[in-house]
Amino acid sequence: MSSISEITQNAAIAFEQYSITTPLQRALFLETIANNIEALGDTLLEQANKETNLPLARLTGERGRTCFQLRMFATMLKEGNYVEASIDTAIPTKTPPKPDIRLMMHPLGPVVVFGASNFPFAYSTAGGDTASALAVGCPVIVKAHPGHLATSTLVATAIQEAAATTHMPAHVFQHVTATDFETGKSLVQADEIAAVGFTGSRTGGRALLDYASSRKNPIPVFSEMGSVNPVVLLEDALVNNATSIAKNYSVSITLGMGQFCTNPGILIGVKSEALTNFKNTLAAEMNLIAPSPMLHEGIQATYFKNSTHALAQKGITCLTANTPTSDSGFPVLTSVDASTFLSNPNLAEEVFGPYSILIECSSMEQLKQVWKSVQGQISTTIMGSDQDFASHPELLNLSLSIAGRILINGVPTGVEVCDSMVHGGPYPATTDSRFTAVGVNAVKRWLRPISFQNWPMHLLPLALQNNNPLNIWRKVDGKLTQDQVG
Amino acid sequence: MSSISEITQNAAIAFEQYSITTPLQRALFLETIANNIEALGDTLLEQANKETNLPLARLTGERGRTCFQLRMFATMLKEGNYVEASIDTAIPTKTPPKPDIRLMMHPLGPVVVFGASNFPFAYSTAGGDTASALAVGCPVIVKAHPGHLATSTLVATAIQEAAATTHMPAHVFQHVTATDFETGKSLVQADEIAAVGFTGSRTGGRALLDYASSRKNPIPVFSEMGSVNPVVLLEDALVNNATSIAKNYSVSITLGMGQFCTNPGILIGVKSEALTNFKNTLAAEMNLIAPSPMLHEGIQATYFKNSTHALAQKGITCLTANTPTSDSGFPVLTSVDASTFLSNPNLAEEVFGPYSILIECSSMEQLKQVWKSVQGQISTTIMGSDQDFASHPELLNLSLSIAGRILINGVPTGVEVCDSMVHGGPYPATTDSRFTAVGVNAVKRWLRPISFQNWPMHLLPLALQNNNPLNIWRKVDGKLTQDQVG
Repeated sequence: MSSISEITQNAAIAFEQYSITTPLQRALFLETIANNIEALGDTLLEQANKETNLPLARLTGERGRTCFQLRMFATMLKEGNYVEASIDTAIPTKTPPKPDIRLMMHPLGPVVVFGASNFPFAYSTAGGDTASALAVGCPVIVKAHPGHLATSTLVATAIQEAAATTHMPAHVFQHVTATDFETGKSLVQADEIAAVGFTGSRTGGRALLDYASSRKNPIPVFSEMGSVNPVVLLEDALVNNATSIAKNYSVSITLGMGQFCTNPGILIGVKSEALTNFKNTLAAEMNLIAPSPMLHEGIQATYFKNSTHALAQKGITCLTANTPTSDSGFPVLTSVDASTFLSNPNLAEEVFGPYSILIECSSMEQLKQVWKSVQGQISTTIMGSDQDFASHPELLNLSLSIAGRILINGVPTGVEVCDSMVHGGPYPATTDSRFTAVGVNAVKRWLRPISFQNWPMHLLPLALQNNNPLNIWRKVDGKLTQDQVG
Repeated sequence: MSSISEITQNAAIAFEQYSITTPLQRALFLETIANNIEALGDTLLEQANKETNLPLARLTGERGRTCFQLRMFATMLKEGNYVEASIDTAIPTKTPPKPDIRLMMHPLGPVVVFGASNFPFAYSTAGGDTASALAVGCPVIVKAHPGHLATSTLVATAIQEAAATTHMPAHVFQHVTATDFETGKSLVQADEIAAVGFTGSRTGGRALLDYASSRKNPIPVFSEMGSVNPVVLLEDALVNNATSIAKNYSVSITLGMGQFCTNPGILIGVKSEALTNFKNTLAAEMNLIAPSPMLHEGIQATYFKNSTHALAQKGITCLTANTPTSDSGFPVLTSVDASTFLSNPNLAEEVFGPYSILIECSSMEQLKQVWKSVQGQISTTIMGSDQDFASHPELLNLSLSIAGRILINGVPTGVEVCDSMVHGGPYPATTDSRFTAVGVNAVKRWLRPISFQNWPMHLLPLALQNNNPLNIWRKVDGKLTQDQVG
């Protein structure tokens, strides 16, 4: 096992070569990783199942998502537009003369990735952070999650073999299996590291940000730290559809034993007969869901502690029949009066697991006050009819201040991997709301723009040469085009 | 005078309305600011001249640049593409079904701007930070620079009058003239503030980053903190053009008494007869430049102190004839052996003013070592012939790690305001190399993406509606187009 300083120095050396590989070379690398992961077959799925308690069907789906992501970034590289090329041609007759100046994106440098407990594939070793960083030319060091070390090691081998067969520089990907806290800290503090990606708890994500910010040379950290994904329930929608909404939300709250950062942990409505119907139906539906084991003992113990703590708060009513046990996840729905909720910040904290709290408000004004009080989310949802939105148009603007993704009449679980996805949001959902962890735009976290001024044509990167050899979209003198220059 | 908390609360209230103004409304606001600044005429120029010692011709040019920037952002708003709209249409037949999901950029919230001493117009009250933040819907609070308070107040009035005549929300722009340190700190720490823009010293910029990072909810800070803009001089270029290069650099080093963050403060070459010729010619040229007063007493005193300190370092040779005086800027060129430079970190520090140091290397290897040792710059320049680049192709890749803008055969002073400009760079040039302070892309500092999932068409923002009423470029199911959807 190499020392941390050897590992980070290796990454810096790898960057010198890896940063100048071509997009097509890296596309082949990513596709080969995906192929290698699939080639691991049931061995990988069974190992992950053993370490995480996640069912094989779910793991099969997640493996599919992981390989889809790798191939999506490969497609992005083949298209080549992610470099955001821009060309301003010289105007020698201007006073002062305008020089020829061209811009494209360039990788930041070695990235350290901390994987998630709840997604052993899609947000871990070869997950979105790793795939997006490798895609744009950043070497990656993965600190394996202690909850699924063996799974992580299998995936790491798949990546390292792909690096070898596609002739990538040595140490383009390194896997660190030490489980102690100091290792992660040392990685983030190492001089050679240029950025950090993290998925996990608020405590962990914030600690990494603090280490990175207090470096001699601060570096960017993108920590995705979970969310309670508040859902606003409007009256007319409930009057017409209380039962079907309750059934959909019962599934969403308990999906994967609630172990998703998009789990709807807070429901907000104005007291009415319809809200009472909704509440009773949702509790009844959740009672039908069988408890089952959670990802690992730590999460199990934390869920037991946090849900027990939440149930013990003043003014909380438990609506479901389950009583907490320490050996499996059990769906819990509680309710609380809005004024009690607003006076007790504990109630706004995420309880990671199949837990949701319904906040009953006395008016729309109070509903808005509750909603604003939980700003800083990955998603927020409004369940409403046309009539509801006509009566309360101000809710749409308000929703924009709450989260990175805003749903109307849907459930927040299920994060589509596509160009338009934002998996991010204002603090404390993430440490930088200007970026996303999911979708093609995830690469923007690891890129910086560089201007090339007055470069001879033959020395310029291909993306910026006049004849547009990569056939990419570029902004030329202010206009988007795929044409050659001149 | 309002208290800091009143000011930041006012900004938060303004954001609710300002964030939903249309791009065209904001374009008119920015154009009116430019018109109002021009309408201040000689009054503004004379006031700035009195406060900064900058000559009227320079100030006239800078006013032009400032108004150009405001109008450039107005044009950006009229074109509308800055929202980076993206649309993924639903695929109900997919397993699981793909929802309709659309993305656009949204303003972060109130921004605090700290203006620069050396650009009383273009990087101050109505400068690039203010203009880019106002453009995209962020209210701005400017903490006026104490070096040009009266100038700042004149410009602030021009902005506030424009806000009134174009019916912008109250407090969309607020001007704080308190000069104490605590005021700036309180602004950055206020709950309502969403981001910070700063141009100035490394000490100041880093302090603001530290305040912002240690908030309960950390916020982004873009501090532009200066640069020594290293220039690499290659042998064949010097053999052929030592005199003309020296003449150009004499102008660049002393332009505006060296008070630009793009001033070339470090020159690096391999010892040769040509380098000696260059050195002697440059010193002779700089001796012809008359000393003149600097921006204000503080800068004058710091230049006197820092240049005296630099001259006193071991192994430094002063090549120019001027001796430091405490009452005016005086051009200074020094030289030092590379090994001495590498062993004394003091020598790599910026001396803000008409000061440059020539580092004489014994080999190309040592030249590269020196260059790498000063990574983290706004710009770097290579002066080289075709033959030089053919002999040392590795220099181009190396240059990418040094700075945000890389010039070949030019001078770094003169920052073109255009799409392809990067005025930024790795720390300590700025606090986040992923952004630029100059050019249209400067708005990216103040924007975050939001996903709109499953929204009814009539509730979506115009930028995301199927019929593309704003006629903007959008990514629709992965393809860039101005077409309607469907």
